[in-house]
Amino acid sequence: MSTPSPHAIRTQVAIIGAGPAGLLLSQLLHLQGIESIVLESRSRDAIEGTIKAGILEQGTIDLMNAIGAGERMMKEGFVHEGIRLRFDGREERIDFPELTGGRKVMIYAQHEVIKDLVQVRLDTGADIRFEVSEVSVHELGGTRPQVRFRDRDGVLRRIDCDFIAGCDGTQGVSRPSIPAGELSIYERLYPFGWFGILCKAPPSSDELIYAHHERGFVLVSTRSPEVQRMYFQCDPTDKVENWSDDRIWAEFNARLGSRDGWKLQEGPIFHKVIVGMRSQVVEPMRYGRLFLAGDAAHVVPPTGAKGLNLAAADVRVLARALTHYYATGRTDLLDGYSDTALKRIWKAQRFSWWMTSMLHTFPGADAFQRRVQIAELDYVTGSRAAATALAENYVGLPFDGL
Amino acid sequence: MSTPSPHAIRTQVAIIGAGPAGLLLSQLLHLQGIESIVLESRSRDAIEGTIKAGILEQGTIDLMNAIGAGERMMKEGFVHEGIRLRFDGREERIDFPELTGGRKVMIYAQHEVIKDLVQVRLDTGADIRFEVSEVSVHELGGTRPQVRFRDRDGVLRRIDCDFIAGCDGTQGVSRPSIPAGELSIYERLYPFGWFGILCKAPPSSDELIYAHHERGFVLVSTRSPEVQRMYFQCDPTDKVENWSDDRIWAEFNARLGSRDGWKLQEGPIFHKVIVGMRSQVVEPMRYGRLFLAGDAAHVVPPTGAKGLNLAAADVRVLARALTHYYATGRTDLLDGYSDTALKRIWKAQRFSWWMTSMLHTFPGADAFQRRVQIAELDYVTGSRAAATALAENYVGLPFDGL
Repeated sequence: MSTPSPHAIRTQVAIIGAGPAGLLLSQLLHLQGIESIVLESRSRDAIEGTIKAGILEQGTIDLMNAIGAGERMMKEGFVHEGIRLRFDGREERIDFPELTGGRKVMIYAQHEVIKDLVQVRLDTGADIRFEVSEVSVHELGGTRPQVRFRDRDGVLRRIDCDFIAGCDGTQGVSRPSIPAGELSIYERLYPFGWFGILCKAPPSSDELIYAHHERGFVLVSTRSPEVQRMYFQCDPTDKVENWSDDRIWAEFNARLGSRDGWKLQEGPIFHKVIVGMRSQVVEPMRYGRLFLAGDAAHVVPPTGAKGLNLAAADVRVLARALTHYYATGRTDLLDGYSDTALKRIWKAQRFSWWMTSMLHTFPGADAFQRRVQIAELDYVTGSRAAATALAENYVGLPFDGL
Repeated sequence: MSTPSPHAIRTQVAIIGAGPAGLLLSQLLHLQGIESIVLESRSRDAIEGTIKAGILEQGTIDLMNAIGAGERMMKEGFVHEGIRLRFDGREERIDFPELTGGRKVMIYAQHEVIKDLVQVRLDTGADIRFEVSEVSVHELGGTRPQVRFRDRDGVLRRIDCDFIAGCDGTQGVSRPSIPAGELSIYERLYPFGWFGILCKAPPSSDELIYAHHERGFVLVSTRSPEVQRMYFQCDPTDKVENWSDDRIWAEFNARLGSRDGWKLQEGPIFHKVIVGMRSQVVEPMRYGRLFLAGDAAHVVPPTGAKGLNLAAADVRVLARALTHYYATGRTDLLDGYSDTALKRIWKAQRFSWWMTSMLHTFPGADAFQRRVQIAELDYVTGSRAAATALAENYVGLPFDGL
């Protein structure tokens, strides 16, 4: 049985995945006059409707504005100028602008970022193909790589391009298309997960609360004045069915404690989920003409809120390298892409691992380790230098050399 | 058989142990007109001749000068204004005065500190009793505690006092005299030791080098222009007999690498020792009228060079509390001694644990952990905030509220 010859399309950069990495890259390239096609296995409604928390670093906020996708974010996002660390019966504040020369973060959900990016791309006539299937990459070692896929009407197609950007996350086809043995994988699984809820209630705090407690970590976050997002550390093999609303609120209250004048705002819970926690880095982030960016190349635990921001940082480096290539014909920045991106990625991995290690209760931790956690929180909130180190990572380290 | 009634002596504070903690305390009390007797199981020659490295924090330097024991230290000690961190083929410097507003450390061996303290105490007519044995403490719960001992002439004696300071280290009688159940012990054993050498050679570096290498940690320290002190991480169960001089130098060179213009200065090795590494804290540091200070209450791994400095900090708090008591009759500072001292101790424990964890190669560490160590060293040496956090701990955190 012969395969029908796929319909060929030509572009400069084929981008696999319409998440933040792929969409941002596509727009950055467009602004430099470089053509791309974005392939996405899910529907537009699906990617825009999958609820995912987002905390944008100052650099990501700036990037969204610079590419013309920041208007709604600036109106509807919530600027946060600090976080609270709650431990050992105390609550201490880390003040971002004061410690970092004015830098802040923005609470703006990842699916809202995606909506804005899809809109800005479509407004500029972008070629985004949703609901594609059977995506595969070919000829990665040459100068004319190909992406083959079946479009939503069932037609097999082929993209002939100069470069492929693998922005399709941990479950995508890009990473597994690189031959075994070409990649080193660095991974850390944590012996706990996060039990997350969404509830209808007013905010319990004007800033996020990161709470360390012997029963486990708690994060009090927010989505909007009406909807709150909260997490507590759980056994990663636990099931949401085991947790009634009453039991959930009792657990939050036990870990957060009562403080004078402060009370946890409770309300109807309409979403429950358990997420696993891991750190992962793939090296190098390139194989021939295929470049990995975002979750396809690395995963961070959510404690440091770095996932989306790392994706944005990756494609910033990649867009600059591709622009340089099309302007000069030189491949030096493309050749340096993986090393340049990995420098920042490892620093963000370190920060995410450190925040996770400092704040969570580790099964089997000895008493010394538990006291060191308290000493670390005490030191971090008491030393200006240490508080600055936390703050500068939270708002985002500078983009070295970019 | 009846025990002969011991000859009774009266003093205000009985101090067990003529290490840095006991001698410093005795001098601090003397300067406030408070009498003490110091008991020491070893001879003066023995305590002055037991070679032990020493790095004095700025606050310890200041204290030695303030009590009139700093003259020789200021002449013969070596002021260091920074350390070098060597990792991943690089060497980066942490500049103490620049990062901490002018603070520095002094390389001055612990047995030299002891010589100076013994001399200054004896010059002021102090009662230090060497080579005592069978030391025991009694009536800790009342207001007239006792210390019994056999003096070097074999006579059993008894000290009636107001307070006892247990400054007799990890092997002394003070800590075990506190009833089981009254103390919480926090401990961390590390899966490695330090192989230390003394050699006749010129210094290899004008500042200490802390080197992280996959074969294990190395510390290049110094004793004098002619004698060098160096350590490499080893299996704690290894034996010095297994290490010929040639093998030792080969190991140092393999871990330190060769750098342009830099070469390890080798020379005859005249001392070899393997030391274990652990962290330990005892809480509280008081039982009735017995107060623990220095190694009797806590042990740190040598990585952060905090042992001697913590002892000095403890007795500073204790001397102030005793002075306050004798001036006012109030016990509030004595009651707060343990909590006040422990705040600083836990911060130093955290620092020592962190330096140890960042710099050593852990048996069984996964590839992720090894990369995070490099990322941490990269971050610490690249971020002013993080470098300041290291520097401010190394030169010594401020004495809060003292």
